[in-house]
Formats: sequence, C-alpha cells, structure tokens
Amino acid sequence: MGIVVQKYGGSSVADAESVKRVARRIVETKKAGNQVVVVVSAMGDTTDDLIDLANQVSPLPPARELDMLLTAGERISMAVLAMAIHDLGHEARSFTGSQAGVITDAEHGRAKIIDVTPGRIQAALAEGSIAIVAGFQGVSQTTKDITTLGRGGSDTTAVALAVALAADVCEIYSDVDGIFTADPRIEPRARKVPRISYEETLEMAAQGAKILHLRCVEYARRYDMPIHVRSSFSDKEGTWVTSAEKVQSENDSQENAMEAAIITGVAHDRSQAKITIVGVPDKPGEAAAIFRAVADAQINIDMIVQNVSAAATSLTDISFTLPRGEGQTAVTALARLQDSVGFAALQYDDSVGKVSIVGAGMSSSPGISARFFEALSDAGINIGMISTSEIRVSVVVAETQVEEAVRAAHAAFDLGSDEVEAVVYGGTGR
Amino acid sequence: MGIVVQKYGGSSVADAESVKRVARRIVETKKAGNQVVVVVSAMGDTTDDLIDLANQVSPLPPARELDMLLTAGERISMAVLAMAIHDLGHEARSFTGSQAGVITDAEHGRAKIIDVTPGRIQAALAEGSIAIVAGFQGVSQTTKDITTLGRGGSDTTAVALAVALAADVCEIYSDVDGIFTADPRIEPRARKVPRISYEETLEMAAQGAKILHLRCVEYARRYDMPIHVRSSFSDKEGTWVTSAEKVQSENDSQENAMEAAIITGVAHDRSQAKITIVGVPDKPGEAAAIFRAVADAQINIDMIVQNVSAAATSLTDISFTLPRGEGQTAVTALARLQDSVGFAALQYDDSVGKVSIVGAGMSSSPGISARFFEALSDAGINIGMISTSEIRVSVVVAETQVEEAVRAAHAAFDLGSDEVEAVVYGGTGR
Repeated sequence: MGIVVQKYGGSSVADAESVKRVARRIVETKKAGNQVVVVVSAMGDTTDDLIDLANQVSPLPPARELDMLLTAGERISMAVLAMAIHDLGHEARSFTGSQAGVITDAEHGRAKIIDVTPGRIQAALAEGSIAIVAGFQGVSQTTKDITTLGRGGSDTTAVALAVALAADVCEIYSDVDGIFTADPRIEPRARKVPRISYEETLEMAAQGAKILHLRCVEYARRYDMPIHVRSSFSDKEGTWVTSAEKVQSENDSQENAMEAAIITGVAHDRSQAKITIVGVPDKPGEAAAIFRAVADAQINIDMIVQNVSAAATSLTDISFTLPRGEGQTAVTALARLQDSVGFAALQYDDSVGKVSIVGAGMSSSPGISARFFEALSDAGINIGMISTSEIRVSVVVAETQVEEAVRAAHAAFDLGSDEVEAVVYGGTGR
Repeated sequence: MGIVVQKYGGSSVADAESVKRVARRIVETKKAGNQVVVVVSAMGDTTDDLIDLANQVSPLPPARELDMLLTAGERISMAVLAMAIHDLGHEARSFTGSQAGVITDAEHGRAKIIDVTPGRIQAALAEGSIAIVAGFQGVSQTTKDITTLGRGGSDTTAVALAVALAADVCEIYSDVDGIFTADPRIEPRARKVPRISYEETLEMAAQGAKILHLRCVEYARRYDMPIHVRSSFSDKEGTWVTSAEKVQSENDSQENAMEAAIITGVAHDRSQAKITIVGVPDKPGEAAAIFRAVADAQINIDMIVQNVSAAATSLTDISFTLPRGEGQTAVTALARLQDSVGFAALQYDDSVGKVSIVGAGMSSSPGISARFFEALSDAGINIGMISTSEIRVSVVVAETQVEEAVRAAHAAFDLGSDEVEAVVYGGTGR
C-alpha cells in the first residue's frame, strides 16, 4: 500500500502490557501491506520522574544536560517497543532522533526542526523492517548536541517524518477516539467529528481543545499531510484532519450528502486569567506603553478589549486575558507603569474561562454570533469579553459557568448525537 | 598539571546525594589544576531495572535493542552528574560513548573497542569544561548502531579514553580503598597494597579478587597506563597499578627500603564447580575428545588435573573446574560422550572453592608452594587440585574451608598489618 507513520503517546505505552498491545497494532498495520514508521513518547511518567531527579541535584539544570537526560525516556520506550515487535516475529529497529535524521536548531528545550534526513529510516523500511523513532528529540545542526523539541514535540516529530518520507498518512494515537464537538466529560452527547480542516483544528487547539498541538497541525497544514487522530484502545476510525478542500469534497461525496455543519465544535479553556487596567487616560500612546511592558515581560496575551471612554472623564478601561501562570509577572510589570501612564487601578481575576465556537462554515452564515450569545443569555450566562476570527467566536465567562456555556452552545448549533458516543479511556494522551 | 580520567561505578552514583558528593570530588580535582574527564556507570540498580523491563516484553530481546535500552542508564547518570557539577559553578558537558568517539565492532552486548577518537572531549577540555562520558557503550564502526561493551565495560572505557587522551592516570573509584592483600570481610587484618604490577593484578582478578576487570587491566598493561584504584568515599591514596618495573623502582626509592614482599595477596573464588570424569581409558585422543566437547559447549574451564593411571587397569581420572553456571551444560555435553570414550562415571561437585597466592617475587623465591601447602595442612585443610603460574599458586579446597584457607595463607606470608585497616563501604562498586 504505502508508508504509514504512527505516533503513540506516553499513556499508550505506560507499561509492558500497553507496549505489547501497541506492538500488536503496529504488526497489524504492517501485515496489511504497509511500510510502518512509529514515533513513540516516553513511557507513562518517565519524563516527570527524570525532571524530579534533575531537580534533586540542581534547582536550575543547564538546558543542554536536561535535554540529554530527558531523551533517555524515549530511548527506553522505543527499544522496549522494538523488542515487543520482535517477540511477535517481525523485524523492528529503533532509532534516536539523531539517527532518524531529525535536524534542529540549538535551542535546547524548545528546538525547532530545520531539516529531516531520514536515510537510515528509509534503509530500514527497504529491508522490510518496522522503524521505531524516538519522538520529541533531535540533534543540533551546529553544535551536534542532542536537543528536545518542547511541548507537542512527539506529534511534530511524527508529522515531520511523515512529510520527509512522503507518507500517505500520519496517525496520531492517544486515549480518545478522535476530535469531538465538545469535551465529552462536559457534554456527554458530544459527537466525534469525522473530518475537520487544518484551520479549524488550529482554532480548536488554540482555544483549549486538548487533542493536537498547534505546532504539529501547523506543520501538517504547511505540507498538506493528512493526520488521522485515533485511539490506541480501539479499532474505530478517528478524525481525519486535512485541507478544507478535501473536507468539502469528502462531505460532498457522502451518500446522503447533508449540508455541512456550520459549527464544527465547541472548545473551552480554563487556564486563563483576566487583567483590567482601570482609568487609563484616553490619549495616543497609552495602550502602546501598556502592551510594550507586557510584551517585554514575555507574557502571551490572548484577547484584548478596550471600552469607549466616558465622555466626562476621557478615561477608559483596558482588559486582556493571559495564561494564569503569567499573571503575577504581568501585574508586577504593569504596576511599575502606574505613575508614567497614570491609570487608576489594576484588577486581576483568575476565576474566568473561555468558551469558543469554531467552524469553517461560519463566514458564509450570518447570525452565528447572535445565536451563540442568545444561547448563553437564555442559560443566564453573562459575557465578559468577546473576540472573533473568520472561523471562530470566543467569549470570556465566569469559570463556574464554563461547563454550562459549553452545553448551551453545543445544543444551540445541534452538534449532539442522539446517543452517548464518546469514550474517554484515560489521561490526556500527551 | 595534566589530564586525569576518573571512573565512578554505579554504587558511587546510586542517588542524588551520591551524585553531588562525586561532583564535589570532581570539582576538587579540577581546582587542583587538572583537566578532568569522568567516565560514569548507570546509577545504582538502573541497569537491572531496565533488563527486568526488557524481559517483561520479550523472553529473548534482540541484542541491538537491548544495547539501545541499557545505554539509557548511563545517559541518565552522566547528564545528572553534569548538572550537579554546574550547580557547583563549574562547566561540565556530558557525552555518549558515540559522541566521545568510542568506536567498537558490531558485537552487541560484548563489543570490543577498536578505536577511540576523542575529538569532542578534547574540544571540551580545551574550552575549560569537565567532560562526562557514558561508560560501557560505544558505536559500531560498520553499522553505526549503539553497542555495549559487556562486563567491565565502564572500567575499560575509562582506560581506553585515558590512553587516547594520553592522560597521566586513570583513577577507578569504587567503594573500597584499593586492592587488599585479601578480602577484608574474611581477613580483617588485610592490608591495602600501595603498588601492584599489571601482571599481579591480572592474576588476582582471574583468581576471583573483585577489584578490577581483567579486560581493563589488560588494556592498561598493553599501553602502560597507570591505574589508581581508590574509594569515592574517602580521600586516602588507593592502590597504584603500574608496570612491574615501576613498582620495583618505587619500592626501591622508599625511605626505609624494605625487601619487597614475596607474596602480594591472597585471592579466593567461590563461583567454581568441579567435574571429575572417572575411569577414562588411558590412551591417546581421549582427553582431546573430552575437552573438545566441553569447548564446543562454550564452557570456560579453569584448572585441569589428570591422575597417573593405575597400572592394573590403564584407567585414569580427569578433573577440571568451571563456572558453576555452566555446570549443567558441561555435564550434558560430556554424558553424550560416555559410550564413545568409554569412561565409567561423571561426578559433579559445586561445593568447592579456590584459594590463590599471587606475587611477582615468587619466581625468585623457592619454597613458596611448600610454605603455602604446609600452612593449609596445619589448618587441617585438604587440597583437592593444584595449579600454578610464574607468579601464582592456586588450590581447590572444600567451599566450607575457603575462608580458613585465606586466613592461613595470609598469616603464613606475614601479609597482615598490626591493626585493622580495611574499610568496606558498600556493594561491589561495579
């Protein structure tokens, strides 16, 4: 058939039994006539355990050595997985990121892939072997030191290898069946989405859906590599992430071609906080000074809202959201500006959440935002902030109302199935 | 000053506290003006844990993958050790065997070093950094796969790197203070030997003394690299292993130049068994057939004794010793020969032990064997077998009498000190 790249996360290879189960699945794929390349994360809690060990000897371990240490995790899982495949009577060879030709820059802990030269992988495939590759790691082009790719690194390794090998598909396995119209733990009637575009997936991921990392989806979109998001615990079809054109043509070719859903899914995010700067003088340069200070503190802000100034005072309020972990840093940086900018007060609120509706059909369908806001209003939910993109509408609400808001939006756009379909098998599969 | 290569075994880096202690020692060596290269084994029980994991997925894991798996152990210890050194304010960089230029053949699990190209180590030293190298591992010249060196691999890595770097000394750290005249757990008055020749060390190691591996001593002898065997738990001088000429000239230069001891130490070995083949026809070719069968079964035999045949029967008995673990295989292989060779019976005895006296002065001092045998006789110990070399006399005795035999030999050659000197700190330091 062709080349299939499969990626298994840490929860899929948490112990010897899981490794054997994954090995059987890999062998099935090989027996179906495919050349198989497998990217694997470290087993279960290995990475956390190694970080604990590092912290026992050094409060701030050097990044080069932390990368050397952490890459031991995938070295273990890939060798054990190759052994399990051997035990099933099939040839398998494991390769480190460096051996697999994953060439990166020298930014330890968050290296970027700059080239993939998979000569040894291709040789192994040509000899009929299954190739097992350590995710999350590479080798620096300049220093020849071992690097790690940071968050989402294993998914990105898989997509990058799939692109370099001109694979037919990159299958990303975790412990959920695919991408759902909402988090099934909040909305039990959430449906698995059979097909979704790269762009919608990016919006879902950016708005808090914990299926694929932004980085790997961006890589896949750039090279148009189809991703099949599946569960390693079942044989069901998962969710295909492809170009919008391909989603459209697949939908059109369905027997009972239905109108494509306008909204693909509802995402939520409870990791954000809100800062409001009260009584900012409404004159040019004030907002710039404020956001320069926030940017200089390396804070990642998300939504920004500035109210119209009250005519009587010429003062305005500016609010923005940011990750909770960066709240203290941002407040400190802003407090230093109080005299020069002359604002009245700072308010910090970490009891907020964000709920977003995402869908490619949105841009051609007027009234989507209105329907969303009405649904929230009918549920008695107050909207704090709003932001939109071409294919997304996001609102900030009280954290206590996030789940209700997800369910209200899900119902308002008829996203639910008649029966409970979603099965969540375990952790997050990262 | 010069280049010092230090090797720390698994018990010296068993946990975070041990790693920090070793880091302080390394930094002291650096501060004394040396360029320091450190070879490190896997922490504590890591290797055993990884082997357990392998056996959970495969009863007979492929050797290539087992090497990939096990090398994760040193990867962890070397990175953590580099972090601990950083934490003391000194630059340290860790290198895998492959990065350090340890080139081997492709015999997974027992690879031989065929070249050492330490360019990256030299570059690190030139930049003022301490270099930490993973012991026990290398990379195959032909397949570019990761290999392990088998038993004694970390000691051998250290000596090989010391030779390639033209180091002044290779320091091998464990949890004992050096090489002793006998095992201090058996003979509390055992003395630390200040200087010993490569040849004597080889004999001691071959006869069961568990300080240095044969392989690393052979490598050191071939290139005349001085080894300093020391404890990582104390600052005392340990034992210097050098050429016999250097031992001689050092002994001669002592203030109160005493006559060099004739016997350097007493070694013992409780890991052997004895097979006796009873009633072998005393004609040409019979012994050859027997030992060909044993060799074909990959059995490592040690001592061989053949009695003079009884004139009346023309039958003789042949005895030999071998590692206990190989006893069953050898008995099975020999039993197959019973009809063709025509011997009467096989006897297997695994309640034996071997005691050896070793000393370079032996060849020029007649009567050493006699004094040894008399001492055993006076202690009521029966001798089963005898073998000798230029600088060694070994006897096989009942296992229950091994300790008594060690003490008797130790006393007969005045090896003891007046007070108890030896301190054994923990495990075996491998």
